[in-house]
Amino acid sequence: MKTGNSTRLRINEVATRDGFQMESRFIPTDDKIALIDRLGTLGYAKIEVTSFTSAQAIPALRDGEEVMQRIVRQPGVVYTALVPNVRGAQRALESRIDEFNVVMSVSQTHNLSNLRMTREQSFAQLAEVITLAKEAKVPVNVSLSCVFGCPMEGDVPLETVQGWIDRFAGLDVHGITLCDTTGMAHPVQVQAVCEAVRGRYPALDWTAHFHNTRGMGLANTIAAVEAGIHRLDMSLGGIGGCPYAPGATGNVATEDVVHMLQCMGYDTGMDLDGLIGAAAQLEALVEHELPGQVSRAGHRLTRHARPADFNEIVERANARLLHKENA
Amino acid sequence: MKTGNSTRLRINEVATRDGFQMESRFIPTDDKIALIDRLGTLGYAKIEVTSFTSAQAIPALRDGEEVMQRIVRQPGVVYTALVPNVRGAQRALESRIDEFNVVMSVSQTHNLSNLRMTREQSFAQLAEVITLAKEAKVPVNVSLSCVFGCPMEGDVPLETVQGWIDRFAGLDVHGITLCDTTGMAHPVQVQAVCEAVRGRYPALDWTAHFHNTRGMGLANTIAAVEAGIHRLDMSLGGIGGCPYAPGATGNVATEDVVHMLQCMGYDTGMDLDGLIGAAAQLEALVEHELPGQVSRAGHRLTRHARPADFNEIVERANARLLHKENA
Repeated sequence: MKTGNSTRLRINEVATRDGFQMESRFIPTDDKIALIDRLGTLGYAKIEVTSFTSAQAIPALRDGEEVMQRIVRQPGVVYTALVPNVRGAQRALESRIDEFNVVMSVSQTHNLSNLRMTREQSFAQLAEVITLAKEAKVPVNVSLSCVFGCPMEGDVPLETVQGWIDRFAGLDVHGITLCDTTGMAHPVQVQAVCEAVRGRYPALDWTAHFHNTRGMGLANTIAAVEAGIHRLDMSLGGIGGCPYAPGATGNVATEDVVHMLQCMGYDTGMDLDGLIGAAAQLEALVEHELPGQVSRAGHRLTRHARPADFNEIVERANARLLHKENA
Repeated sequence: MKTGNSTRLRINEVATRDGFQMESRFIPTDDKIALIDRLGTLGYAKIEVTSFTSAQAIPALRDGEEVMQRIVRQPGVVYTALVPNVRGAQRALESRIDEFNVVMSVSQTHNLSNLRMTREQSFAQLAEVITLAKEAKVPVNVSLSCVFGCPMEGDVPLETVQGWIDRFAGLDVHGITLCDTTGMAHPVQVQAVCEAVRGRYPALDWTAHFHNTRGMGLANTIAAVEAGIHRLDMSLGGIGGCPYAPGATGNVATEDVVHMLQCMGYDTGMDLDGLIGAAAQLEALVEHELPGQVSRAGHRLTRHARPADFNEIVERANARLLHKENA
């Protein structure tokens, strides 16, 4: 494990999109806005605010336009949104988002299950979206699902992953996110995949996106960073997940990842105490316990109180010592 | 992240001691024995069966003698127990345990809070225990608590840790366990501490023991292994914890750590499917959900079913394609 050596990392928050779309309760628009406004001050490079999907498909995010219109945009923070199709692109442009995030899966079965299209159909649709973004001079990020495995197909060959990267690189997108959609990645694989794709397109803005389904999310984060990927998706409190992976816990928790990276000497630019406070606000909104751990346990150097009877313990210990010396 | 390259690791199970002592429910003796007998067949190097502490201090383990007497000992598995004092050593020797595990903290405040003695008093008491073990030719392992930090004092200087290691090495113990008692360790620290202490005493049998309090347990495991510590404590299902660290989750979960290390190419010698089965047995005993994740999510390559309407999705996708081609 290398020390962070003050390497600057860029942190992207996905709770308000990837997280909220999985919650059973509709988060009121005012509450979404208040949370996003708070997050905007905490040092994020990017916040994925919402999704311009149809209200029928994802009712949890049916208020995308209003949220985008009413949030206070902080200078230096990129406010992005998921844009699935041409209709979504029009809505996104009207909302003046800073970046389009488009999504498809490198697994045919997962793409069909999740997006109800073949990969070729998704690519054709996203190519239209990308054309609209380019005309409006809005940068595009491509999030590729199942890069580290598909819960229905198993491992996805690296050549397949690279084939889809080649096609999006050919459309001159700004960045690509390697998504471990259902927490199948392990650190050795992460290092190999990240090094391979970065080596092929060093100028692309690469992001890694991990889920903690099998507990490896933080270890995978280190592997990606050591392989030179310095932009990371994460989700406050660890909310979010994938409906096609039963038993799956969600995204890695922002506060847990940031805490670890800061301990290791990386410069995340983030306000950790602010994150812990925001996680408490989020927990009240979603009305269930969050999987994130640092918001409960605190920073590693948070001091805990000694036992209430500590002074008596010391006195008794000293008394035993005197007793022994006098014996 | 290096590949495991078939490096052989030794796995120690602590659930039946470190875990059970923290459970509010008394686990019936027959159930303890059945679980330990099952664990004995799964590839562990060592199982910490019980603690020879007084029944008043730890009622959960008051059946230590009976458990030791009735378990089926598998060849090649070391059956160890915690031995706190001379009375415990006598009981342990009568039970013919394979190894003594003695415990003290490198933090004065933690040692007083947890063991109600100064570190010097603990050391003096353990020196007597070690003498008894040596006379009986039973090897001794020393578990040092709070090596990576104390929840009440904060970081413990490496010189302090090394001082206590020097003193136990002077008593010619067989091995030393570096315990992250309340989950304060981070990977860069782990690598530095493990390399330093191993460099000083390369012939000692070193073990690393992590808690997952702040989510870093698996990353810390990799750091320890990369620093050359090839023996690891872990707890089935992730049970166990520390009463002096509020909000703390427990030990790293055996099934999660073994799964990750196997994915990375290490040779753990463990039967992962057997572990997942044993975790289910354990969950029924403790009557609460276990923090371990792989027992719920399965191996990373466990295949999940496609959506029930998958064939219709494919038909509709193909129909759209034909429609477009005919347009």
